[in-house]
Amino acid sequence: MAMSENISDNVAKAEHYVREAAAGGSRIILIPELFEGEYFCKDLVAEHLKRALPLDENPTIAHFQQIAKELNVVFPLSVFERAGNALFNTVVMVDADGSRMGIYRKSHIPDGPGYTEKYFFSPGDTGFRVWNTQHGRVGVGICWDQWFPEAARAMALAGAQCIIYPTAIGSEPADPSWDSSRHWQRVMQGHAAANIIPVMAANRVGHEKGSTTEITFYGSSFIADYTGEIVAEAGRDTEEVISAEFDVAAIEALRTSWGLFRDRRPDLYGSLLSLDGNVE
Amino acid sequence: MAMSENISDNVAKAEHYVREAAAGGSRIILIPELFEGEYFCKDLVAEHLKRALPLDENPTIAHFQQIAKELNVVFPLSVFERAGNALFNTVVMVDADGSRMGIYRKSHIPDGPGYTEKYFFSPGDTGFRVWNTQHGRVGVGICWDQWFPEAARAMALAGAQCIIYPTAIGSEPADPSWDSSRHWQRVMQGHAAANIIPVMAANRVGHEKGSTTEITFYGSSFIADYTGEIVAEAGRDTEEVISAEFDVAAIEALRTSWGLFRDRRPDLYGSLLSLDGNVE
Repeated sequence: MAMSENISDNVAKAEHYVREAAAGGSRIILIPELFEGEYFCKDLVAEHLKRALPLDENPTIAHFQQIAKELNVVFPLSVFERAGNALFNTVVMVDADGSRMGIYRKSHIPDGPGYTEKYFFSPGDTGFRVWNTQHGRVGVGICWDQWFPEAARAMALAGAQCIIYPTAIGSEPADPSWDSSRHWQRVMQGHAAANIIPVMAANRVGHEKGSTTEITFYGSSFIADYTGEIVAEAGRDTEEVISAEFDVAAIEALRTSWGLFRDRRPDLYGSLLSLDGNVE
Repeated sequence: MAMSENISDNVAKAEHYVREAAAGGSRIILIPELFEGEYFCKDLVAEHLKRALPLDENPTIAHFQQIAKELNVVFPLSVFERAGNALFNTVVMVDADGSRMGIYRKSHIPDGPGYTEKYFFSPGDTGFRVWNTQHGRVGVGICWDQWFPEAARAMALAGAQCIIYPTAIGSEPADPSWDSSRHWQRVMQGHAAANIIPVMAANRVGHEKGSTTEITFYGSSFIADYTGEIVAEAGRDTEEVISAEFDVAAIEALRTSWGLFRDRRPDLYGSLLSLDGNVE
């Protein structure tokens, strides 16, 4: 979906599509990142810091808790969280009874022309989390997290049956000729294939003109199956609902018999706990 | 390429294709896994253990060292190594001056119908290695290693400019309807995309009938660019040379500006050092 600067319009639009998805049988529903407004991180402007709200003071969360309960669906809600003096890019996980299961704070924070998130968000301090919802065990990362195999693996190790990523990504203001959309998809297809687990990403569409920078978000939201094959994909500039159904037991049987999780070598992975590859 | 049980035929064939690749300008050349013979691991038969040789007694290695020097090319040579009483699935890295740079022993050992490698090989004890060859810094994994994001990441962290995998994979004797070829490719395309680094795999082709099990190797050797896009691919049953050229400096510039290696969170990756996801 595309977002405007009108919060209630965006919330109403998200609700419309959530109802459409639920009517089609979807039980785990993913709305794009920071859907309450435009992607404000394209401008390094202090005014936007005021958008952050304590979770208990954000009416959008309470509204979607009611919808989750009404529709018997699960979703992560992506919001800009104020926690004391700290600000985070946060997902509130809502179960199918409308309860808040807890939060995940975006671990990997990007920074670059048009995506100056390090100005707005502290790196998340929750660690990767998997939610044992009424409709399955759901791992949730947020946007830039999707580029990191470590995050997907950590969620798979924690028992995720699917991994989902709310996202905001599009053109690169520093190099308009660069289109990362297939690159972006292939990283996550790799997570799906390597962990034998379905992966989904929901991105925004539309052109947003900030005070300093413009971005055309490229949509291309998709669902990849447990071999990494894309089985549903949205257009680059269309608002739409996509869905897929998976046989969790069959996937788990293949995941086990394939042996990847039997044959890992944690004794050799020490360098992954460094930035520069030095184990010392 | 397809292999027979005649070592000298296989060596001659590999040499033929290496010369073709070098004549076409290739400088880093990848021959499939265990190319000296048929893929003996499809049968759990003690006789095959005798194939393992101490590296200094394997004439194939010395032969290809001469070819590397003559052609000014780099390659990993995949052999069955005996080291005292231990047996390994090993790559000997040969530099363009014909010298042996060292060895890498396959870290991840598969086991399943048709691929009973745990009977033949101890899990490698070298850790992941990157070779600073005369033609670039080359990371080498061996077959099953290619399914593990941790191995690719470790090689990328160690400075690899490309990652290459000699391979032997094909049909699943336990389920002939299952074709893993695209799944297999997508995992490695994911490594390429997530690490912003070209990835190559060389697989065998042909049907091999062992004493207990038959496998049709599915070829599909490929080269993926630094976004994970396949830029060269061999057929499923054809013997052929494929090649690609990359601008290492341009890739490094994109890898740096994209920021993935800046934004990793080693403090959150502790569970990767376990088999079950438990950090404790």
